[in-house]
Amino acid sequence: MALAAASRVLLHAGSRLGRREVVDGARRFANKQVLVETEDAAGIAVMKFKNPPVNSLSLEFLTEFVISLEKLENEKTFRGVILTSDLPGIFSAGLDLREMYGRNPAHYAEFWKAVQELWLRLYMSKLMLVSAINGASPAGGCLIALTSDYRIMADNPKYTIGLNESLLGIVAPFWFKDTFVNTIGHRAAERALQLGMLFPPAEALKVGVVDEVVPEDQIHSKARSVMAQWLAIPDHSRQLTKSMMRKATADNLIKQREADIQNFVSFISRDSIQKSLHVYLEKLKQKRG
Amino acid sequence: MALAAASRVLLHAGSRLGRREVVDGARRFANKQVLVETEDAAGIAVMKFKNPPVNSLSLEFLTEFVISLEKLENEKTFRGVILTSDLPGIFSAGLDLREMYGRNPAHYAEFWKAVQELWLRLYMSKLMLVSAINGASPAGGCLIALTSDYRIMADNPKYTIGLNESLLGIVAPFWFKDTFVNTIGHRAAERALQLGMLFPPAEALKVGVVDEVVPEDQIHSKARSVMAQWLAIPDHSRQLTKSMMRKATADNLIKQREADIQNFVSFISRDSIQKSLHVYLEKLKQKRG
Amino acid sequence: MALAAASRVLLHAGSRLGRREVVDGARRFANKQVLVETEDAAGIAVMKFKNPPVNSLSLEFLTEFVISLEKLENEKTFRGVILTSDLPGIFSAGLDLREMYGRNPAHYAEFWKAVQELWLRLYMSKLMLVSAINGASPAGGCLIALTSDYRIMADNPKYTIGLNESLLGIVAPFWFKDTFVNTIGHRAAERALQLGMLFPPAEALKVGVVDEVVPEDQIHSKARSVMAQWLAIPDHSRQLTKSMMRKATADNLIKQREADIQNFVSFISRDSIQKSLHVYLEKLKQKRG
Repeated sequence: MALAAASRVLLHAGSRLGRREVVDGARRFANKQVLVETEDAAGIAVMKFKNPPVNSLSLEFLTEFVISLEKLENEKTFRGVILTSDLPGIFSAGLDLREMYGRNPAHYAEFWKAVQELWLRLYMSKLMLVSAINGASPAGGCLIALTSDYRIMADNPKYTIGLNESLLGIVAPFWFKDTFVNTIGHRAAERALQLGMLFPPAEALKVGVVDEVVPEDQIHSKARSVMAQWLAIPDHSRQLTKSMMRKATADNLIKQREADIQNFVSFISRDSIQKSLHVYLEKLKQKRG
Repeated sequence: MALAAASRVLLHAGSRLGRREVVDGARRFANKQVLVETEDAAGIAVMKFKNPPVNSLSLEFLTEFVISLEKLENEKTFRGVILTSDLPGIFSAGLDLREMYGRNPAHYAEFWKAVQELWLRLYMSKLMLVSAINGASPAGGCLIALTSDYRIMADNPKYTIGLNESLLGIVAPFWFKDTFVNTIGHRAAERALQLGMLFPPAEALKVGVVDEVVPEDQIHSKARSVMAQWLAIPDHSRQLTKSMMRKATADNLIKQREADIQNFVSFISRDSIQKSLHVYLEKLKQKRG
Repeated sequence: MALAAASRVLLHAGSRLGRREVVDGARRFANKQVLVETEDAAGIAVMKFKNPPVNSLSLEFLTEFVISLEKLENEKTFRGVILTSDLPGIFSAGLDLREMYGRNPAHYAEFWKAVQELWLRLYMSKLMLVSAINGASPAGGCLIALTSDYRIMADNPKYTIGLNESLLGIVAPFWFKDTFVNTIGHRAAERALQLGMLFPPAEALKVGVVDEVVPEDQIHSKARSVMAQWLAIPDHSRQLTKSMMRKATADNLIKQREADIQNFVSFISRDSIQKSLHVYLEKLKQKRG
């Protein structure tokens, strides 16, 4: 289904026009794949994913994402960030499989460290994060949403969200799982992870994968009003509370980060896994071609 | 209420006819208390509990159950198992109290080890397990259902399910509790365990003790369709995901397994507990007589 | 909103008449701030908070509360306690801010130890505790309710309940958080704690902060019938089950109790926090004046 989402977006790639809204008083950072529109007066920024065709989390994208986030964290002006997509129909398709295929172990290790880094940065961010999920959000795309403080999804039944790794013959890392359990509870996570469930908006709301579903054209205004509500809380109280809730989960990765990298490298280097990825990537190419 | 369930079944024992359905292509293992019907083409087996009158988990039953399960695990043909009852109106009444009364400490230890073993085998099974709960399922009966990957209950308000140990003046072991918390959450488990709550199907569904409630005559077809849905997932992904979700809970018993046995033996050997069991068993005998 | 609740009660303080109901067969302990009405035949006691205007948890109140509870625990007559308020419109406004302002470190330490002690005593009490929440219940007031085995709230939309510390620029201690997570789950707690949410009865019921909402004039009869239901369970089963569910959470504070006190003392002694408390207390005085 991640594949389905990807191909759907590919079919529509010709009609994608970038939808660059002009935001009053906004200035842009000079990014390529993560557009950052800042609204200094409100103390917020909007990060728009723009890595066509499906906002895959490539090493380059991950690196830019983390650097942009770090910049915003370091400027005292900013208190909150809205995460959303600049591409129609897709929030993010998740990890870029091309980073996991036909490379050497050093590359796999570098890539995995960048994935870990993004998760750690987002999950423990001092900033208030809202995900405005305006498209399909499988696997790593869902993970980004799960790290936010609040998740709003566009009410379009074509969009689905979930950790669907098992559908692809792989397994979600334990820290994806931990984030999921923290969000929807142990039993719902156990079932959804085993089945690789991708939830349409109404079901995502019901099981707790997202906090709110709104008509697609209201998702950005809703994200702003939610942000305003959360920013009414003194930053230090909100930040200390967030840290208290999440630190044990983050520490669980930090203390075994190197082992987790080695684990990924040895798993992804297996012949059987490389073959599966080859088949999958060839299919993607044919659809694209 | 376990007592009530037991006596209800006892009253109906005369009309029990075994209900041996003929399943196309099925072969049977030569079991006595756990009928195993295999459907090689589908890669599944059905285990039917048949230990009249109430499918009590005696030492003999537990041993046969574990051996049958082990056989299925070792044959690569089988990917999933449906657990159900061959007796009308009862899934399983739980641990056989006669194994806990008037025996010596060595017997209690052997019995408890077998209970632990069944839980460990079921909870961490590589096989996909569906419980088709076609009757009352108190205490240890509920535990079996809780270890499954999916629970379907027959929509008969006479059937109830729950960990009702506190009603009998005993306490559910911590690993029953851990399994329950993983399934329905901390607060719901706290309340249900303290009160020894037995839930009718609609309530069991609402609180999350079961995943689905269906008309009684559809429970087996439903179990098969759920099984097919889960077996669409590659085995190694499903198994690794299941292990990731459950290993910490299983390890929690494994690391203190011997202490848990000693704890059980010393608890059950108390005069006060033996007296309670005596009174309870006498009542059962009178009903039966 | 704790402030709002406080001032609302202050406005009505003139009309407060004590509402001393005569309970058949009841005797009173000679308390000042926690009225204890015992019903020996039923084996229960009712503890009524009476520390006008808002049942603030002062050092004196906490001390009396713990001593009264200890007395009841030590008398074998009593198996359950109903916690409620003797003041109209307020269950408890939580910790008395005057104990945290303008005092010396030794006082802060003594106060915090008393808060810990109350939580430990209530959370691990052998007695069955029901909170009959007949008024606003922010912060520490909510904590008292959370420690109970069952929470019934009066159906008055003016009453709210929640851990709203972040609204005041402070942070709920980790053991408040642990109690909250155990009650409503990780995600709901994360959101409610960051936003300092105060829930009206219907929402409190929906999210699981309370177990039941009843018309205000039925809250005491309801508390009694719930108590009777729980006391139908043998005490030792109920107590061992409760301890099994809660011990790890209590131990988490016990093992770092001294560090938690030092942490509180150093936090509350900060100039910035003292200034915030000064501003807040001045506002309260003006409302009162």
